Amino acid sequence: MFEVAELGRTLDKEAYEQLEMELRLGLLQAQQGLRSCPFPVVVVFAGVDGAGKSETTNLLARWMDSRYVPVQAYGTHSDEERERPEFWRYWRDLPRNGRIGIFLSSWYSRPVLDWVQGRSDDLAFRRDLERIEAFERMLVEDGALVLKFWMHLSKDKQRKRLEKLESSKLESWRVRPEQWRNWEQYERFMAAAEETIRRTSTGQAPWHIVEGANRRYREATVATRLRDAMQLRLHEHERRLRTFTPAPVERRRMLEDAEVSPEPQANSQSVLHTLDQTRKHDKKSYKKALKHEHARLAKLTRQAREQGRSSVLVFEGWDAAGKGGAIKRLTDVLDARDYRVHPIAAPTEEERMHHYLWRFWRRIERAGKTTIFDRSWYGRVLVERVEGFASEETWRRAYAEIRHFEEQLVDHGTVFAKFWLHITPEEQLQRFQARERTPHKQWKLTDEDWRNRERWADYESAVDAMVERTSTREAPWTLVPANNKYDARLMVVRTFADRLEQALD
Amino acid sequence: MFEVAELGRTLDKEAYEQLEMELRLGLLQAQQGLRSCPFPVVVVFAGVDGAGKSETTNLLARWMDSRYVPVQAYGTHSDEERERPEFWRYWRDLPRNGRIGIFLSSWYSRPVLDWVQGRSDDLAFRRDLERIEAFERMLVEDGALVLKFWMHLSKDKQRKRLEKLESSKLESWRVRPEQWRNWEQYERFMAAAEETIRRTSTGQAPWHIVEGANRRYREATVATRLRDAMQLRLHEHERRLRTFTPAPVERRRMLEDAEVSPEPQANSQSVLHTLDQTRKHDKKSYKKALKHEHARLAKLTRQAREQGRSSVLVFEGWDAAGKGGAIKRLTDVLDARDYRVHPIAAPTEEERMHHYLWRFWRRIERAGKTTIFDRSWYGRVLVERVEGFASEETWRRAYAEIRHFEEQLVDHGTVFAKFWLHITPEEQLQRFQARERTPHKQWKLTDEDWRNRERWADYESAVDAMVERTSTREAPWTLVPANNKYDARLMVVRTFADRLEQALD
Repeated sequence: MFEVAELGRTLDKEAYEQLEMELRLGLLQAQQGLRSCPFPVVVVFAGVDGAGKSETTNLLARWMDSRYVPVQAYGTHSDEERERPEFWRYWRDLPRNGRIGIFLSSWYSRPVLDWVQGRSDDLAFRRDLERIEAFERMLVEDGALVLKFWMHLSKDKQRKRLEKLESSKLESWRVRPEQWRNWEQYERFMAAAEETIRRTSTGQAPWHIVEGANRRYREATVATRLRDAMQLRLHEHERRLRTFTPAPVERRRMLEDAEVSPEPQANSQSVLHTLDQTRKHDKKSYKKALKHEHARLAKLTRQAREQGRSSVLVFEGWDAAGKGGAIKRLTDVLDARDYRVHPIAAPTEEERMHHYLWRFWRRIERAGKTTIFDRSWYGRVLVERVEGFASEETWRRAYAEIRHFEEQLVDHGTVFAKFWLHITPEEQLQRFQARERTPHKQWKLTDEDWRNRERWADYESAVDAMVERTSTREAPWTLVPANNKYDARLMVVRTFADRLEQALD
Repeated sequence: MFEVAELGRTLDKEAYEQLEMELRLGLLQAQQGLRSCPFPVVVVFAGVDGAGKSETTNLLARWMDSRYVPVQAYGTHSDEERERPEFWRYWRDLPRNGRIGIFLSSWYSRPVLDWVQGRSDDLAFRRDLERIEAFERMLVEDGALVLKFWMHLSKDKQRKRLEKLESSKLESWRVRPEQWRNWEQYERFMAAAEETIRRTSTGQAPWHIVEGANRRYREATVATRLRDAMQLRLHEHERRLRTFTPAPVERRRMLEDAEVSPEPQANSQSVLHTLDQTRKHDKKSYKKALKHEHARLAKLTRQAREQGRSSVLVFEGWDAAGKGGAIKRLTDVLDARDYRVHPIAAPTEEERMHHYLWRFWRRIERAGKTTIFDRSWYGRVLVERVEGFASEETWRRAYAEIRHFEEQLVDHGTVFAKFWLHITPEEQLQRFQARERTPHKQWKLTDEDWRNRERWADYESAVDAMVERTSTREAPWTLVPANNKYDARLMVVRTFADRLEQALD
């Protein structure tokens, strides 16, 4: 794979100087053009030590407006990072729309080193690469331009390069003992590199293998590719603004996606109709049962805190289905210092400038805490789908993105549950009317609630598709019959307690 | 003031090239040395447009390891920033210990522009500058090396420079119409600059005025000063490590500080002894009164949310004084989505790498939310002082830092209250013993509680000093007699409701 990157290509000084002005202008213009575009540029540098990752990064920052080209380099995880899923720190640093972010090794570093140094086997390595592939696909499909440069050196050239760096006053600090240890494992690194590139070089986030031996050659190569990719994307964006047609790339992907199976049409077949709404508890038996579950939950959540186990709970459901009441019955027994409830409404300006999952990632809490989402990332496949706020292509790919996100939470050891609180349309009507009659509840009922009600059938289809596509073994939906509030609240409390019980030692 | 920066100094190419290697090496070594030091370097660039702020920034990033020299440039405030005190975004970006952060204009930009463009009067401008001075002093006293460069050009030179930039293909994007508008107001800018430099050039965070007309001269000047300042600081740090004596600068400041008045000695005179601990409510009258206050609070907090008014509440007090119970009586009537309780224990690794107020700043919530601190930044002048975790110099200056922090909250419109829950030593003993006897409460009592109890008198002195020095008109302490839990809880709920009532329209 790397033979073409060992051809010994160079660029002479004159040719480089001729190119330089053109490249700098092109990069600057592209950076300026990007500023008003609704997508970011993510540039990843990885590869052999000494092949010029840092120097090329410096060059790009220098040739562009460096104030807006942040470079992200990562060391070992801090305690705050270790207590969250691995990708949390990368999400934290993703550039906002209109900006460029440069990532040094970043999400490739741990998987490659783990495999090379024998801390992970082939299967674990493949799984890591699949996660990376899914992560980058998510960025790309959200519009991000993702460019990845693999800086290559032959083993011999690497040795020479490290020796040269060591002998340079200005550069010797770049060579630490670990660089030499890595060099000794050169062949194993190359095997890891091949596997990495093969598995993560996708049509939309391809790797560019760059011969790193000659400074001028590698700088010109990287700068040219970055400039060209940015300019191409800017042209596409402009054209799309003029014509309003979906880009061919997106359209193609949409058709290819196995998930585009026909939607269930007949609402009478909806999964929601299978729920048993018969009343199981009256006030008295509910109070007794709740007391029992509360005692369980109090004990379990204290244990979870002691063991550093986090929980994430998601509440979705019809308006007036009783989400708030159910959440209250949970938080009643939690220590106020241990949980947080996030009501999810319209995103802030800062949030709108990022991938839509960014605002959920940033809310993930540290070890031992419970994070409760009152409405959630499912908005994309519910309200945004039904109201047309998201394009079909966008909400369709959200299913996989969401599965992927939740899988990372579960893999990290987070106790996870998601609830759909279901009431029948008749029950909802009664609750709306009751709210209208009760002065201190009127503020809870808005015109929007009535409008949503009119689109019941559309929402029902959306819920059906959501459950079908996002109820996985690791992160199953709990569908809660909620016509009777008592039954619904009990089921929520009991389900969370059960999950905790399973998860704790 | 700026005459010396209009002398037309230049540096010829040869001299510059001779200097360059030496400067780069020096900067690199200083950066490497800094990495293991327990303080950050904050570099601020401000000054005349076109005088080379950005270019010099680029140069520094290039000469050092640019991965660890983040450059912070700021545009208009985002919605998330507007909903918090002005300095929140700067705190967010402060470099951690061992790192360098470069700030372009940053906290100087808004005050200067407001005054130049007539949006603020002399008094408001002076107040802005005082706030900056206090902010930088806080950083310096925490150990940060703060360097500020004012890049200067004469009016005529600025015009020429802007024209030259405009005519350069690679640089023309730097000149926007606002740069020319600013140029027309050159004299007013210079008046603002003089005032700014005069008021914020302190012994420990002085301004360096740099003649910006000649690229080589200004680059060499800035790089030399930065290198020298870093090397000097590194030497000082090393020497201190060897000798364990407080730095002379700190010692001097300590003696000069007007706040170092003698401590109150006689504990019988403590402010806490003036509190009336007579029981005012029994269970029945408490329940009735609480119901009334809860109804008030529920209404007021809803209004606060609607008006986007945030609240910050601080709870301090003896172990077993009932902080948790009092907080619970507040949160009982708050919407779980609107508040957050932060228990303050040991800082995380990330937090330890910053100024100790950083971890409180990052927890300040958006508009309409209530943030409750269960213990707080007062730890510095209480437990850290008494247990000797903070040096005397450190906790002494915390009084002013805290006043300053709280003042910013209040100025921003935040409803603020801080409570000291006071019980007598006899009452505490009874509560400890009751905890020992009750199985499900035993976990609340630790050896540390007993140890703290032995230092009651020291803590009492610390509380006295704390109240004396941080109970200001804008942010007064509420001292709560808490021997009777009912009275204490009622007082807390009522005080918060009263504060909200005063604040809301």
